[in-house]
Amino acid sequence: MSKVTLDERRFRERFEEFNEIGATAAGGVDRPALSDENRAARDLLVEWFRDAGLEVRIDEMGNIFGRREGREPDADPVLFGSHVDSQYNGGRFDGVVGVLGALEVVQALDDAGVVTDRPLEVVSWSNEEGVRFQPDMLGSGVYAGQFDLEYALGVEDDDGRTFGDELERIGYDGDAPCEADGVHCYFELHVEQGPYLEDAGLSVGVVEGVFGFSWMNVAFEGQANHAGPTPMDMRQDAFVATADVTKAVRELTATGGEDLVGTVGSVDVWPNAINVIPERVEFTVDVRSYDDDVVDRAVDRVREEVAWAADREGLEFAFEEIMRLDASAFDDDCIETIAAAAADAGYEYERLVSGAGHDASYLNAIAPTGMIFVPSVDGVSHRESEFTEWADVVAGTEVLLRAVREQATV
Amino acid sequence: MSKVTLDERRFRERFEEFNEIGATAAGGVDRPALSDENRAARDLLVEWFRDAGLEVRIDEMGNIFGRREGREPDADPVLFGSHVDSQYNGGRFDGVVGVLGALEVVQALDDAGVVTDRPLEVVSWSNEEGVRFQPDMLGSGVYAGQFDLEYALGVEDDDGRTFGDELERIGYDGDAPCEADGVHCYFELHVEQGPYLEDAGLSVGVVEGVFGFSWMNVAFEGQANHAGPTPMDMRQDAFVATADVTKAVRELTATGGEDLVGTVGSVDVWPNAINVIPERVEFTVDVRSYDDDVVDRAVDRVREEVAWAADREGLEFAFEEIMRLDASAFDDDCIETIAAAAADAGYEYERLVSGAGHDASYLNAIAPTGMIFVPSVDGVSHRESEFTEWADVVAGTEVLLRAVREQATV
Repeated sequence: MSKVTLDERRFRERFEEFNEIGATAAGGVDRPALSDENRAARDLLVEWFRDAGLEVRIDEMGNIFGRREGREPDADPVLFGSHVDSQYNGGRFDGVVGVLGALEVVQALDDAGVVTDRPLEVVSWSNEEGVRFQPDMLGSGVYAGQFDLEYALGVEDDDGRTFGDELERIGYDGDAPCEADGVHCYFELHVEQGPYLEDAGLSVGVVEGVFGFSWMNVAFEGQANHAGPTPMDMRQDAFVATADVTKAVRELTATGGEDLVGTVGSVDVWPNAINVIPERVEFTVDVRSYDDDVVDRAVDRVREEVAWAADREGLEFAFEEIMRLDASAFDDDCIETIAAAAADAGYEYERLVSGAGHDASYLNAIAPTGMIFVPSVDGVSHRESEFTEWADVVAGTEVLLRAVREQATV
Repeated sequence: MSKVTLDERRFRERFEEFNEIGATAAGGVDRPALSDENRAARDLLVEWFRDAGLEVRIDEMGNIFGRREGREPDADPVLFGSHVDSQYNGGRFDGVVGVLGALEVVQALDDAGVVTDRPLEVVSWSNEEGVRFQPDMLGSGVYAGQFDLEYALGVEDDDGRTFGDELERIGYDGDAPCEADGVHCYFELHVEQGPYLEDAGLSVGVVEGVFGFSWMNVAFEGQANHAGPTPMDMRQDAFVATADVTKAVRELTATGGEDLVGTVGSVDVWPNAINVIPERVEFTVDVRSYDDDVVDRAVDRVREEVAWAADREGLEFAFEEIMRLDASAFDDDCIETIAAAAADAGYEYERLVSGAGHDASYLNAIAPTGMIFVPSVDGVSHRESEFTEWADVVAGTEVLLRAVREQATV
């Protein structure tokens, strides 16, 4: 293959300019899905796609595609990208690296005058993070047939605004059908969000699959009462039961499976007053493993512990599993393509499994899929201090470029 | 003594009219200190005080006094009352019974043409509940010399508005000095907020004293991180440590002293997202006992547990005791006056100790003090469903009337 060189300076300048949108004082970005900041980021992305000669297509879920024709326009395209929505006060790398890296790949091909056999499509998926609208990975989920379009457009944020209405408000309610119509394969470059690559001193990771996970909503309902004159044996304290379940989730990770992780992340207490026994607590439990049986057992154990804790404290309870995704093993051919690309580019790499869910998990169900990881400093993500060395971003993008070229060759 | 009869119908009608202010759909009231609803309640109270011929005096803390002269105007007055601020979405009886009961007492004396030797003063204290402005019992606390006036006027609510500014906004920044200037004794009629009187089938309780208590603020600070790819041994989860302390508080009440109660009532989690490890948690601990040594030891144990939990999880922590009140035993003479009044009125009664703090706790430091309890159905308070049978309210007011007359006689 002829030599294609990334323009590191252009790539870096774009990255910095892009992250001025929704920039926070602490060095992060605040661009949750379908916010005004997310719209501004989308607008800039579409402008850059058009400047790069890509044919822009917005689908019914607001997913943004930029197509570069190949020598064989009827061949299924190679699709690659990530997302540009962020956590509330999230980091600058999560998602952005994969989308702007993909854009850099097609421009580097342009610069070198390289036309691939297959068409290339760069993509930015809607609502990967799932912080404003649940479930997460909504755009890729509809695209891959995991959710109905009507359901996805109807999900509401905490203020009761629907995804569909907000999509229309920001002008990204596109006409293109949100469905896969022949994808040769999908690649996604992303920050690792864990400590392994940094600990191993590597710039690149070849992702073999993604943990399965379960998201659970739990509510306990007891009796609000004065914290002084209410004897201990009369109490129905919804927060004590929440503490029970939280400790049980932690303990479960010690015994429930080698790679099992568990988190109580969101907790809301009513009436939340210093001298009133908590009447109601709503909280979430997140459990993940690469082994679906481990997740199954963990969910059962959490459900049982919720019932036991409610019984001990005399509470009503509600338990709902709101999201479940099986572990996914990526396509062997895509994995080997990425591994070979890393080796050809001169990077040592490690094969690893992702603890975080990604759009690639859904894409994997409908097309051969692979992912490239670059290191996260201190394993940190979903925070303003999230950081990846620029040389590592470039290394990952170089691997993406080579993998895309390989798969785009008929 | 000549016969004095309460006007039960007037009393009841007033109670109902008063509780239309800030009434909630679920049958409670929402009149937190210095809110617009609290102002409306104060306005109506002042109007009724004036209609009853009381000389109204507002002090610098917004405490409202209504004075009825006695035969010996230079004698120290008998002071009696309670408060009309409520919890957020609180009940209709807490505080209100003691203030409107006190008003009914002076009007019943008027109806019967009875003039007491000592002047009588009905009082409504500012910010007893302490839900909007901490600490609680702020008005009586300044009056009794427990807090500086400047400090009290400067405390802020969660929106940064000071007590002083809000007092001025609602027009209750009075001119009268907020200080005790000769109080013969203080009586307070209040709902029990616990189960004992109802369980014993009694209408009246003679309160011998009030639990001491400690309020603690605790903050844990760890690391927000993605709930998936962050290995368990890398976590610094502020909520797991909160669960540890919550369980420790519960366990402490089983072993730390017979009457010890402990509550984690208010909990706030950041960033509070389903897939992010909690970085920061701020929560409160409330411990109470009639034995100050028991409270001392409980506070020490909570402090130690906070440090241990932080150490186990690798967190920074802050621990602050924001409020401490020793147990108070009421005045023997006042207790016996109330007991005799109950017996004379034909009510069986029980002597008991209050688990809840009251304005009477502060008054007890500067004047002989006693309290009368009436039953709380199911021991419930600080909730919209708080309820006391009207016959019991009348019984308690009857005892208050007799106790006031007794002490007002030189």
